[in-house]
Amino acid sequence: MTSKPAMPISPLAVPFPDMPAVAGVELAVGRAGLYPGDRDDVLLMRLAEGTTCAGLFTSHAVGSAPVDWCRAALKASKGRGVRGLVANAGCANAFTGKAGARAAGRVAAAAAKALGAQRREIMLASTGVIGVLLDDGKVNGALATAAATLAPGAWLEAARAIATTDTFPKGAFAEASIDGSAVRIAGIAKGSGMIAPDLATMLAFVVTDAAIEPRALQALVDLHARATLGAVTVDGDRSTNDTLLVFATGRGNAPLIARPADTRLADFSAALKGVLLNLAQQLVRDGEGASKFVAITVTGAKSDASARKIARTVAESPLVKTAFAGEDANWGRIVMAVGRADEPIKRERLSVKFGELFAARDGVVARDYREEAMSAYMKNAELEVAIDVGVGRGRAVMWTCDLTKRYVEINGDYRS
Amino acid sequence: MTSKPAMPISPLAVPFPDMPAVAGVELAVGRAGLYPGDRDDVLLMRLAEGTTCAGLFTSHAVGSAPVDWCRAALKASKGRGVRGLVANAGCANAFTGKAGARAAGRVAAAAAKALGAQRREIMLASTGVIGVLLDDGKVNGALATAAATLAPGAWLEAARAIATTDTFPKGAFAEASIDGSAVRIAGIAKGSGMIAPDLATMLAFVVTDAAIEPRALQALVDLHARATLGAVTVDGDRSTNDTLLVFATGRGNAPLIARPADTRLADFSAALKGVLLNLAQQLVRDGEGASKFVAITVTGAKSDASARKIARTVAESPLVKTAFAGEDANWGRIVMAVGRADEPIKRERLSVKFGELFAARDGVVARDYREEAMSAYMKNAELEVAIDVGVGRGRAVMWTCDLTKRYVEINGDYRS
Repeated sequence: MTSKPAMPISPLAVPFPDMPAVAGVELAVGRAGLYPGDRDDVLLMRLAEGTTCAGLFTSHAVGSAPVDWCRAALKASKGRGVRGLVANAGCANAFTGKAGARAAGRVAAAAAKALGAQRREIMLASTGVIGVLLDDGKVNGALATAAATLAPGAWLEAARAIATTDTFPKGAFAEASIDGSAVRIAGIAKGSGMIAPDLATMLAFVVTDAAIEPRALQALVDLHARATLGAVTVDGDRSTNDTLLVFATGRGNAPLIARPADTRLADFSAALKGVLLNLAQQLVRDGEGASKFVAITVTGAKSDASARKIARTVAESPLVKTAFAGEDANWGRIVMAVGRADEPIKRERLSVKFGELFAARDGVVARDYREEAMSAYMKNAELEVAIDVGVGRGRAVMWTCDLTKRYVEINGDYRS
Repeated sequence: MTSKPAMPISPLAVPFPDMPAVAGVELAVGRAGLYPGDRDDVLLMRLAEGTTCAGLFTSHAVGSAPVDWCRAALKASKGRGVRGLVANAGCANAFTGKAGARAAGRVAAAAAKALGAQRREIMLASTGVIGVLLDDGKVNGALATAAATLAPGAWLEAARAIATTDTFPKGAFAEASIDGSAVRIAGIAKGSGMIAPDLATMLAFVVTDAAIEPRALQALVDLHARATLGAVTVDGDRSTNDTLLVFATGRGNAPLIARPADTRLADFSAALKGVLLNLAQQLVRDGEGASKFVAITVTGAKSDASARKIARTVAESPLVKTAFAGEDANWGRIVMAVGRADEPIKRERLSVKFGELFAARDGVVARDYREEAMSAYMKNAELEVAIDVGVGRGRAVMWTCDLTKRYVEINGDYRS
């Protein structure tokens, strides 16, 4: 593969946050040369002994060698004793058969050797072109060098090393309290195409110095995934490599929590959700070619699941998304997308709002609809669309971006 | 609404066919002024007494006043004694509540008066912006003038009058034999955005001089819709106004056929399917901004329905469609789209072919894969992608087009 054309930073970018070190976590980046340019493309993370891990992976039927690896490793270890992570950009190692699985295994072995751990204690993640076998020799060469530079806190470099078409590095940080002790939560992620519900991110890694048993950690991840990484979409395409990994090193001062229902987890749980949502929204802000960040809220649906399906259909409709790009308050297209979601709605009670302005109400154009006010609102970089379908109490929010010529430009010339 | 920017004719356009008159059918076009420009926007069709009718309409939950009208009219008449059709471009009369329904009724009344028929014997179809009430006064004014010019065979003018973003008029013609008598089948259609499976076309009208009872005619329509108008997609969006109407005037020499299973219908059935497929493919050829016409064939699926779902997911994937636009044989994206269809596949038996060239075979890149040959193939304006998922005998074909910057351009500036 070749690298992408130089890309301007997304107008919706947010600054990389101040992210302090997290006890029990060290980072290093390296250059495997999977990109022709002069950039880091490998991330090595060392985790303290006793680190627990929870994961969520793509529901994609083809998947990839690193996702297969992580699933098997977590199944075997039950999320205990994870010692490291290797992530690379530039090659997804997906649809590469047994050779791809062997390459992944050799990367894990090299990382294990460098960290003094066992192969199965290493987690793997890859992103890049599908169908190309990972050159593990190159990755392992980079790992050997990187291992010597492991240090706490190099989050920005880490976020940059895993980027592909991202135009800005993505990080989020929070502090929370567990039973009176402060704990830290730090996360990085990369997008930015092939982002869809059902685990939207391609890669997201979150670490905390809290001490949480795997079952409780996994329960928190499962609890929050749907309303965070599962609630953003750029193009409706879903990657073979989507991976979320959350690591808890237990090296802070907080007591060990074993049960997901332990009330001492409440503050941590909310903070973890915040970090995941922050990362998820950054993925949309860096959606390929995005110029608008749009929140789609659906209320009045038969159920939350029904609201989610309607919100997703609107958020992924090419006609709706191109209208956003054109700053066109084309509420007719929203109605079109709502109707094709095949969920229960009451046509005569349907309403559509842009910000605080009603476009449609009770199944027809709003009485006080003013084109000028609407057009002025559409010029904002951040938009809110609220749809009520008048059936019940189901509710969902989904975040999406617009569909611009730039998206086509970027994706029409990715590989060749 | 304002009219679209002047649009170059699709590079995939096909010439309008020679379309002779069909006995029992007269056409006229008129100018209601629903577009600011100098163009016809109303079609009036007069049908001989005794004409039968079959229809298929959008499955969209919001629908539109003309679709509601047709459904009710066909239900009441059981498809017998249809005397006319009024179709307009420039206004969809969808999401217009009771006022929209009344406007539709007044158009039907005006047409009925002009044709000496009853209101409920008139079928209606509208296309254009959603959420704007149809100005029936304008339409009825145009109808009064048009009625004086009714004549057989003005197919080209008719196809042009119903166009919106279409860049070329769409018609198809076939002859068939019923029990030794020649019958004619003529159809026109318009696209070209909001085209998706589940009745893909916005508007398609087909007439024949065959004599076929409504039940048999409807059975033929139901039989062929899925593999024709239901097998094309441009953007996955579905209109509130999709309408297919098939009229049989019985004014040819063929005997009346009552039962769908009557073997004398075999040749007619095949010819009708051919006309519907021809029109459906023209919709894709005129997909907004399209530069590639792509047939996606899926074999080896668990069932035909499963194959259809996989083919549709591939055909609607923005990443796949932008790769076509970039003339990039990015089979990895095809694999990605196959995998996210959530249908049974065998990863280790998956194959992907572009034309006669294998890109992937048995779950990995093909041994004889040559980038140059593949790149040369991708430069064709018409592409064939064949996917085998290695599970069973299910099979489907879907036709789609690429996603270009032009699509975004056209749709980012439709209304305002």
